Amino acid sequence: MKDYIIKDEWQIIEDEFRPAFQEISESLFSIGNGRMGQRANFEEDYSGKSLQGSYIAGVYYPDKTRVGWWKNGYPEYFAKVINSVNWIGIHVYVDGEQLDLEKVKVHQFRRVLDMQKGQLIRSFEVEMNTGARIEVQAIRMYHLFQTETASLTYTVKAINRNMEIAVSSYMDADVVNRDSNYDEQFWEFEGYEIAGPSQSLTVRTKKTGFAVRADLASRFLYNNKPIINKQKIDERVKVGERVTQIVEQGAYLTVEKYVAIHSSINHPEAELSKLGTAQVEWMQDIGFSNLLRLQQESWQKIWQDADIRIEGDVSAQQAIRFNIFQLYQTYTGEDSRLNIGPKGFTGEKYGGVTYWDTEAYCLPFYMATKGKEVARNLLIYRYRQLDKAIENAEKLGFDNGAALYPMVTINGEECHNEWEITFEEIHRNAAIAFAIFNYIRFTDDRAYLATYGLEVLVAIARFWSQRVNWSEAKQAYVMLGVTGPNEYENNVNNNWYTNRMAAWCLEYTVQALEEVCGRYPDDYHRIVSKVHYKAEESEEWKHIITHMYYPIDEERGVFLQQDGFLDKDIIPAVFLSKEDRPLNQKWSWDRILRSCYIKQADVLQGLYFLEDQFDLETIRRNYDFYEPLTVHESSLSPCVHAIIAAKIGNPEKAYEFYLRTARLDLDDYNNDTEDGLHITSMAGTWMSIVEGFAGMRVKEGTLSFNPFIPQNWDSYSFNVQFRGTPLKIKIAHDEFMIENHSEREINIIFNNELTVIKPVEK
Amino acid sequence: MKDYIIKDEWQIIEDEFRPAFQEISESLFSIGNGRMGQRANFEEDYSGKSLQGSYIAGVYYPDKTRVGWWKNGYPEYFAKVINSVNWIGIHVYVDGEQLDLEKVKVHQFRRVLDMQKGQLIRSFEVEMNTGARIEVQAIRMYHLFQTETASLTYTVKAINRNMEIAVSSYMDADVVNRDSNYDEQFWEFEGYEIAGPSQSLTVRTKKTGFAVRADLASRFLYNNKPIINKQKIDERVKVGERVTQIVEQGAYLTVEKYVAIHSSINHPEAELSKLGTAQVEWMQDIGFSNLLRLQQESWQKIWQDADIRIEGDVSAQQAIRFNIFQLYQTYTGEDSRLNIGPKGFTGEKYGGVTYWDTEAYCLPFYMATKGKEVARNLLIYRYRQLDKAIENAEKLGFDNGAALYPMVTINGEECHNEWEITFEEIHRNAAIAFAIFNYIRFTDDRAYLATYGLEVLVAIARFWSQRVNWSEAKQAYVMLGVTGPNEYENNVNNNWYTNRMAAWCLEYTVQALEEVCGRYPDDYHRIVSKVHYKAEESEEWKHIITHMYYPIDEERGVFLQQDGFLDKDIIPAVFLSKEDRPLNQKWSWDRILRSCYIKQADVLQGLYFLEDQFDLETIRRNYDFYEPLTVHESSLSPCVHAIIAAKIGNPEKAYEFYLRTARLDLDDYNNDTEDGLHITSMAGTWMSIVEGFAGMRVKEGTLSFNPFIPQNWDSYSFNVQFRGTPLKIKIAHDEFMIENHSEREINIIFNNELTVIKPVEK
Repeated sequence: MKDYIIKDEWQIIEDEFRPAFQEISESLFSIGNGRMGQRANFEEDYSGKSLQGSYIAGVYYPDKTRVGWWKNGYPEYFAKVINSVNWIGIHVYVDGEQLDLEKVKVHQFRRVLDMQKGQLIRSFEVEMNTGARIEVQAIRMYHLFQTETASLTYTVKAINRNMEIAVSSYMDADVVNRDSNYDEQFWEFEGYEIAGPSQSLTVRTKKTGFAVRADLASRFLYNNKPIINKQKIDERVKVGERVTQIVEQGAYLTVEKYVAIHSSINHPEAELSKLGTAQVEWMQDIGFSNLLRLQQESWQKIWQDADIRIEGDVSAQQAIRFNIFQLYQTYTGEDSRLNIGPKGFTGEKYGGVTYWDTEAYCLPFYMATKGKEVARNLLIYRYRQLDKAIENAEKLGFDNGAALYPMVTINGEECHNEWEITFEEIHRNAAIAFAIFNYIRFTDDRAYLATYGLEVLVAIARFWSQRVNWSEAKQAYVMLGVTGPNEYENNVNNNWYTNRMAAWCLEYTVQALEEVCGRYPDDYHRIVSKVHYKAEESEEWKHIITHMYYPIDEERGVFLQQDGFLDKDIIPAVFLSKEDRPLNQKWSWDRILRSCYIKQADVLQGLYFLEDQFDLETIRRNYDFYEPLTVHESSLSPCVHAIIAAKIGNPEKAYEFYLRTARLDLDDYNNDTEDGLHITSMAGTWMSIVEGFAGMRVKEGTLSFNPFIPQNWDSYSFNVQFRGTPLKIKIAHDEFMIENHSEREINIIFNNELTVIKPVEK
Repeated sequence: MKDYIIKDEWQIIEDEFRPAFQEISESLFSIGNGRMGQRANFEEDYSGKSLQGSYIAGVYYPDKTRVGWWKNGYPEYFAKVINSVNWIGIHVYVDGEQLDLEKVKVHQFRRVLDMQKGQLIRSFEVEMNTGARIEVQAIRMYHLFQTETASLTYTVKAINRNMEIAVSSYMDADVVNRDSNYDEQFWEFEGYEIAGPSQSLTVRTKKTGFAVRADLASRFLYNNKPIINKQKIDERVKVGERVTQIVEQGAYLTVEKYVAIHSSINHPEAELSKLGTAQVEWMQDIGFSNLLRLQQESWQKIWQDADIRIEGDVSAQQAIRFNIFQLYQTYTGEDSRLNIGPKGFTGEKYGGVTYWDTEAYCLPFYMATKGKEVARNLLIYRYRQLDKAIENAEKLGFDNGAALYPMVTINGEECHNEWEITFEEIHRNAAIAFAIFNYIRFTDDRAYLATYGLEVLVAIARFWSQRVNWSEAKQAYVMLGVTGPNEYENNVNNNWYTNRMAAWCLEYTVQALEEVCGRYPDDYHRIVSKVHYKAEESEEWKHIITHMYYPIDEERGVFLQQDGFLDKDIIPAVFLSKEDRPLNQKWSWDRILRSCYIKQADVLQGLYFLEDQFDLETIRRNYDFYEPLTVHESSLSPCVHAIIAAKIGNPEKAYEFYLRTARLDLDDYNNDTEDGLHITSMAGTWMSIVEGFAGMRVKEGTLSFNPFIPQNWDSYSFNVQFRGTPLKIKIAHDEFMIENHSEREINIIFNNELTVIKPVEK
């Protein structure tokens, strides 16, 4: 755990140069706009520890799978959103000496991520080895208002004497991934242009063939006056411009970089050149200060809807905003082809691809803060990949249009290559069905079921019905050889969560078929004919629903995580010694597997999803049994526990779990922030507050709250968009305030009582 | 399945050039002498499919582990016995055209592995593209009488006209492994010498630093008369000599190669040079025909003891001799630092390292055919590695001197890197304990227990006692998260075989402690003090023995392979469609795991090892339940089934299983002979005949037979060395003959009746 970030309500601040933490800060201060993003690498040369990374959503390379021992069914590749053209590069030479923070004396250093304005600001003062002292200020942005552009300014001031300063503003296509299975370069270089007022580089991903064109225009200023005498940088894979200037003591040299990055994902290749040139021209025309303003306005709109305001706790305030900010930097929901990688644009780990995190954790956040369309786009992403999910199931021996969604994917094809996950962690399929249910429950967009949802549900139901088998011994359907959400168990039989969610999927599909048949008969017939659905299928599903086997401990009154769980040595995690933690770094895998320790909510994940089906006592008994055995070594674990703890009336525990997620990255809790941020679990932090503390639920179509407030907070407030009604909720000690910003009345349930909320007066 | 090998009692014969099968033949015609060995690569250049391989026992490279996702506890490297100096190389140019069987017209081709004489003989006639026709004959050997030497002759005859023939006799150190995790070369080149009458190359393995020196002397003859005018080959990593000669029609040019390969494993580095020079000089002196004679005499001695003679079935005769021949080419038992790789010296797969195959399959073969010392050396190999096994267990969280022997090793360190095997297939530990028991049962070498065995047993017992845990639910000791011999189940609970063998290990250790305490009190006290053994440990072990949980199906009266086995869909393998076989190539891993299909004997392996503890009906019930579910996709499977089938009175099945192992490689049954031969399972073929057909057992110190003979055989006979008594056993229809070649009477049990066998009259 680290504690070097200065607390502030709107800013992430580092006020000292810490080379040892550089890769952590590169993750923390990452910027992005949902379409592109990058780690907070320095603009100038830096020879210290650094993981260079600039990423473009959807631009990936299929890196050939590498395993120790091949198993039949493994995917051919792992799709990776890859490090692309480095557009921020600036070489600075002071009296001929290269500026490199690793090699000069750093007197002052400050890095600020301004979350309100969407800017990364860095300033520092250094003494070069020649004795020249300079001050640098750099500001950069990925524009939220035009997501294929970015800009920065970089100012060097001469402090202690006149000096010759040379500044190169360049883009570089010669970039690699640290994570490459066969040490390949993933890009082909296609060409460059330096003839006009701007420069360009065009590169293409190998195998996938995505063309990316980057355009750069640079303005150089001396004491704010344009410098005319520029030289071209012409190194083929590296282009740009440079100036050399005698800078008098107290004067300063500025470079403004305007960059457009267009790819063949979004445009015909023939247009990339025209688009790039036009964009950099436009940015030059309106100038950096106007870009700053536009950026701030764009972020303002997001904050209006998505902010959570916490009064009385700066640290908590900073943390929740950081989580929300990074989520919106990663995904804005405008493009249904995109999704949310566990690390967003902040590192290479997990390759920027999609996990069940999206459905289980991110969907509720975007649904409530951004509205229906965005949530719908997240669902349509999976709808578009249904064919691939059917193919994936076929590869594993399923038929009749059964679909198994991949554990990890970018284009619908499975990428993961551990058999115990890839082939067995199949509960992900249920999360995708549940997301449809959850979306409709929240938005009441029933037409979605007819247009898209039902097809997905039928394919998922078919998978489950083939995946179970009848046990003669148990006279029930069993599900053998699965891995539940608790990945500290592999290849278990009858994981309660998976069995329950599978049966739930069948229930929901049967019900959805009936609903669509009744409400949207045309759609119903279209779908039935398209997927060759037969009524007998529903009969079979109903038989499975009524004869599904669930492992249960009658004595304790708890659901068993899986068959045989009670054969384990059951000792609460609190008795583990410090040297044993985290288990996944200290224990061999077999020891973890045969232990009783739980990585993340498993039975409890089911009780969270299907809360309405269980009485409070049942939820409490299971929580009391499982939580003490849970080591929360997944960033996705604490939020579900926070919500359940709140639900069963244990606000202290709920707050404790909230703290474990909220500052997970800011305090580098798991010692892995240098790899990138835990983006998807950030949505869990939001859930901890909204579903946990505020107890927000949808109950039979009505929004419901059962709030509490942590002792050391004065108040907290947030907005939700519920079925077209913008609501502002504020919770203080002994106070619950709700504002209806729509034109009509709305019913809500407050502490189990129905209340009418009138529109606020304008 | 292929069927191109000509049937012969003593020879393996290929009589046609089949480029498509070249890699298969390279495996089949492999030669070796227990210390070195090689695939049957051609001497001359060959541009077709080929896997070059010459290996030196014990000379390995630790190839850095490559996995998709690292798990804590994985080993750092996989030790590989690596492809070393290519000493057979001969370039042949005929009127300037290179001889390459891929590029010329092959008129005749014949390859013979003479198992009686230990020679590889190849002859062929080709027409060069120039029209020149030549005939070639090549003979080569790895000398069994001097295991650091090898030799060959290569004769080229001009058939249809006078021609200029140039022949280069060379060694080449520029060799690679096809199987290299990071495409590295594993050797450093150290130096070469070409000054004297012979040439040498010295190379050193990277990381492990084994020095290997190869010395070569070549003789060139024209119509058997020495050619004086030789040129040196001086290409640094490639040295040798060449001659160019006008060869008249009908005349021939011969090269004899004498090669010595010495390594720092066996000699001080300073002596390698002297040894190499002396050896090649000696070989040149006595000449190739004498080497042929010495080789034949050496093999004769082996065949005297180890041969199985089958009358009336040439195919079976060829097969069993091929198995015995290859086993002795791989391991002769003279060096306790060496062991038996699953592919011997015939390919790269499995890296030439040691598996539990040695104890479970190879030990009985060597024990009966070669006598006590060799079997003892196999046990001492593990004794020497006890410290590493204790370290290995420590890495996995065990303490108090508990040992877990590695799944795969060359120097005692674990190499395997699939968690379900490396960490969980722990039954290997029991096989090592059982081998001690089995060795003493057969040899009556009780002192072995005191000198070496007990220490190993205590360490293994400690492992099991820590690996089980008390189940409150079952009120018994359970063993969670294991993989049994049936690797088509992973991470199961209470694998019957593992539980039973673990308890057996504890029983045997308790008994061994008592025996050593009584018979060898000095050794007992030495060991107790060395390993800090406390009497309470035995008490704990006894508690585990009496309270071990065994999964059982009372209704069927069978032991259950593991908890939950009866939840599976149980459908005999005979109902699987052809397209599904072999499962491990056709089904995804999860599908295999949740199916009822069994890779190799699991419960039945336990019934085989501990046969005396179960009545015939129990064995039959388990066989009848499990065999139909077994797909025998391990080469180690059929032999155990053959033995049990014979035991329960099902000779037809026993013969059927025998056939599946005996010609496994000769007929390329599993379509993988090109990777190398299934050396360790070859011992299973021997067991099928001796323990299966002949029903040989040791019963309370007396050798016992319950023989039958397959219908289509006239007779079969074999020798065993039992406690110093050489016995010859011959079984025909209605005839059982046993000859005692010792000086004293011996009791044997024949069909459950005790009989006295007098020495044969001399």
